[in-house]
Formats: sequence, structure tokens, C-alpha cells
Amino acid sequence: MDINKISQRLQNFAELRDWVQFHTPKNLVMALAVEASELLEIFQWLTEEESKQIVNDEKIIRLIREEIADVLIYLIYLSDKLKIDLEEAVYQKIKINEMKYPIELFKGNAKKSNRL
Amino acid sequence: MDINKISQRLQNFAELRDWVQFHTPKNLVMALAVEASELLEIFQWLTEEESKQIVNDEKIIRLIREEIADVLIYLIYLSDKLKIDLEEAVYQKIKINEMKYPIELFKGNAKKSNRL
Amino acid sequence: MDINKISQRLQNFAELRDWVQFHTPKNLVMALAVEASELLEIFQWLTEEESKQIVNDEKIIRLIREEIADVLIYLIYLSDKLKIDLEEAVYQKIKINEMKYPIELFKGNAKKSNRL
Amino acid sequence: MDINKISQRLQNFAELRDWVQFHTPKNLVMALAVEASELLEIFQWLTEEESKQIVNDEKIIRLIREEIADVLIYLIYLSDKLKIDLEEAVYQKIKINEMKYPIELFKGNAKKSNRL
Repeated sequence: MDINKISQRLQNFAELRDWVQFHTPKNLVMALAVEASELLEIFQWLTEEESKQIVNDEKIIRLIREEIADVLIYLIYLSDKLKIDLEEAVYQKIKINEMKYPIELFKGNAKKSNRL
Repeated sequence: MDINKISQRLQNFAELRDWVQFHTPKNLVMALAVEASELLEIFQWLTEEESKQIVNDEKIIRLIREEIADVLIYLIYLSDKLKIDLEEAVYQKIKINEMKYPIELFKGNAKKSNRL
Repeated sequence: MDINKISQRLQNFAELRDWVQFHTPKNLVMALAVEASELLEIFQWLTEEESKQIVNDEKIIRLIREEIADVLIYLIYLSDKLKIDLEEAVYQKIKINEMKYPIELFKGNAKKSNRL
Repeated sequence: MDINKISQRLQNFAELRDWVQFHTPKNLVMALAVEASELLEIFQWLTEEESKQIVNDEKIIRLIREEIADVLIYLIYLSDKLKIDLEEAVYQKIKINEMKYPIELFKGNAKKSNRL
């Protein structure tokens, strides 16, 4: 995935509409959370089994694809604004997670949260 | 960004911990929303101006980088599960947005939402 | 529930800490969403069945009670700020829902969302 | 606010539509988070100042009132399901917060989050 190319396309989109003024980091994280919640909305009343079968429902998958794209779009706007390299950030976080969740301790254990 | 490579790394991470069982689409969208909200939490009490200055605060940027990575990680898990191509999805959505928000109508107009 | 009494107690709490300055409607909805997501976090990896059994787990219920309280606290701060009467708002919304979801059409049908 | 009366009205609403089956605690927290995000959506592109002025915009206030009601409705469904007394929960949480945020340490300090 050519993030730089997508990023330029997105900047261009925002500039043409004079929307850059609205893209403060604070507003962008709000927009990101709103888009993530639109995914929640699709799944909120589904059983586990129905949620697994959804991959075969072309109509809903099309809707999900749009919401997933929206999340990624705001993630790219936000990363650009904060000068964060997405790929580097992901690799760093995977390393952190590997240390935070050693296999022997967390195998089959869903209680990943510190809070539980 | 080599999404396939990251994706394989993430699958491997989940398999080694026997966490694939928890990764139903429903659970993954919940995890995605939780991570997006952790970004919200960082920005909730900041003024617009403070949110713009945050790019210079190395300590908070490190925290934000981790949360942004978490969002992308769950987005990749979810897309894999639902056989959605992230790059294709983003380009399709940009086209949809270009039609939905014609420049002449939306220039400088933040009221993007249908609901307002 | 004496909302006015709670509301006065909360205003007092915020004033004593000089936190009223942070309580713009925008910030309060962010805080509300953050607290709602902390509930999501508790449930994200649970199966449907585990989520039903959680009522018997005193330790997690204590945690959930705190998060539920946080959501209600921000809801009260927000309503006060926007001069919205919570009780009246709920009764009005129930009436709207009764018209929006006529029994004969929606009986046993989870697809409440307009979007599906 | 007579929570018991509202609660009975809500249970009746759900039973008549045979929706109780969808009201697992997991689904209810998702619905709660979705409704909280619909409030976020209304505020996402507003400046701090615009967010303060919104109290005078009758049309948007009507929309906000509906979303606030939705949050409270799911909060009541969830509390009922988990046998949590909302009023008691709020008073307990206020006490916890009073100890967690001593006035002398937190006066004028927005960095309430443990994470910052």
C-alpha cells in the first residue's frame, strides 16, 4: 500500500474543499472514533455466529468496506498531521506487544486488559 | 507499507498466543473502537490550540503513536477476517467522497454530516 | 433519583477543582464517549454467554458500576450545560421510538438501524 | 427522575418487540457506545466557541436531546440487566473521585488521566 500516494490524494481532497482548517488533531481523533463506532453499529445486535457469517453477505460487506476505509482515511490524516510514520509505528507496537504479552503467560488467555 | 507482511506478522502473533478464537469480527470492531477511544482520551481536555501544539511534545507523541498503531493493527485483523483489501477500499471511498461532497457545495463547509 | 441534587454535587466537585473551564460541550461529549468505551473494553473479548454470566462476578461488576457511573456523570454535566431535562428527554425519545419501530414491523427483528 | 418507572416502560417496549433476546450486556454496551458516538459526530467539526454557542441552536439541541436520551436509555437497560443501582453507583463514584483527585493537587489541572 502506497501510503504517501494515498496521503497526497487525501490532502488534495481536503484542500480543494478548504477543509484543512477543520483538521486539528483533536477533531481528527473525534472523526476517527465516530467512524470506528459506525462499524460497532453494524455489529451491535449480531450474535457471534452471525458476525462470523457476515463475510458472505455482500451487501453488508460493501458497507463495512466503506467504514473501514473511513477509519483508515482519518488515521492517515492524523498521522500526517502528527508526523507519525504508520508502518514504523505498527512494527514498534508489535514489538512492544510481544514483550507485554509473553506467550507462556497469555496463551489462550483473553484477559489482555490491564484493567481486569 | 507492506500490508501483507504486517498481516502475516500479526496472524503469527495471534496464533502463537491462541488468540485467534477471540478474533470474531464483532470482537475486532469492539477492540478497534476501544483503541480509537484511547486516542480520544488523550485529547479530551485539550484546547484546539494545545491539540495543535502536541506534535512538539515527544512524550505524548510516543503514546499517540502506540494508540494509532493499535487502531491500524485491529483494522488489519478485521480486514483480513472479512477479506477486504484496505488499499482498494480506501481508493473506492475517496471516489465516493468526491461525488458525495462536490467542491462547489462543500467548500469551507464543515457540516459534512447528513444529520445536520 | 434526585438529578438536581446529584447535579449540584457534581458542579461543586468541578468548581472546587477549577475544572469548569474544561467542561465545554465538545469536551464533555468526548469524555462521555471515552467512558462508554471503557465499558466496551471490559466486554470486548467475552462470549455472549460469558457476558451474561458477568452479573455473578462481583469484582468485575464493581468495575462496571464505576464505568456506568462515569457515563451518567458526564451525561448530567452535559445536560446541565445544554439545559436539557434528562427525564423529559427520555420520555420524548421513548415516544419517538414507539412510532419509529411499530410492533408489527419490528417484532423479533434486530435490524433496527436505518443503515442495514 | 423516577428510574423504576422509566425502566418498566423500557422493559415493556423491548418485550412487546421481542427485543429482550438482543439485550445481552455485551450488545448493550455496544449500543451505548454507538449512541455516545452519535453525540461526538455532532460536535466533531465545531470549534470550542461554536460548541459553547450550540445551546442557542434549537434545531441541533433537539437532535442532541434525542442522542442524550438514547445514551441514558441504554444505560438503564444495562444497569437493570446487571442489577446495578444507578443512583448509588453515582454517589459511590463521586466519593471515589473526591479521593482520587484531591483539590490541592488537581486544582486547574486538566491532566486527570492516569495515562498522561
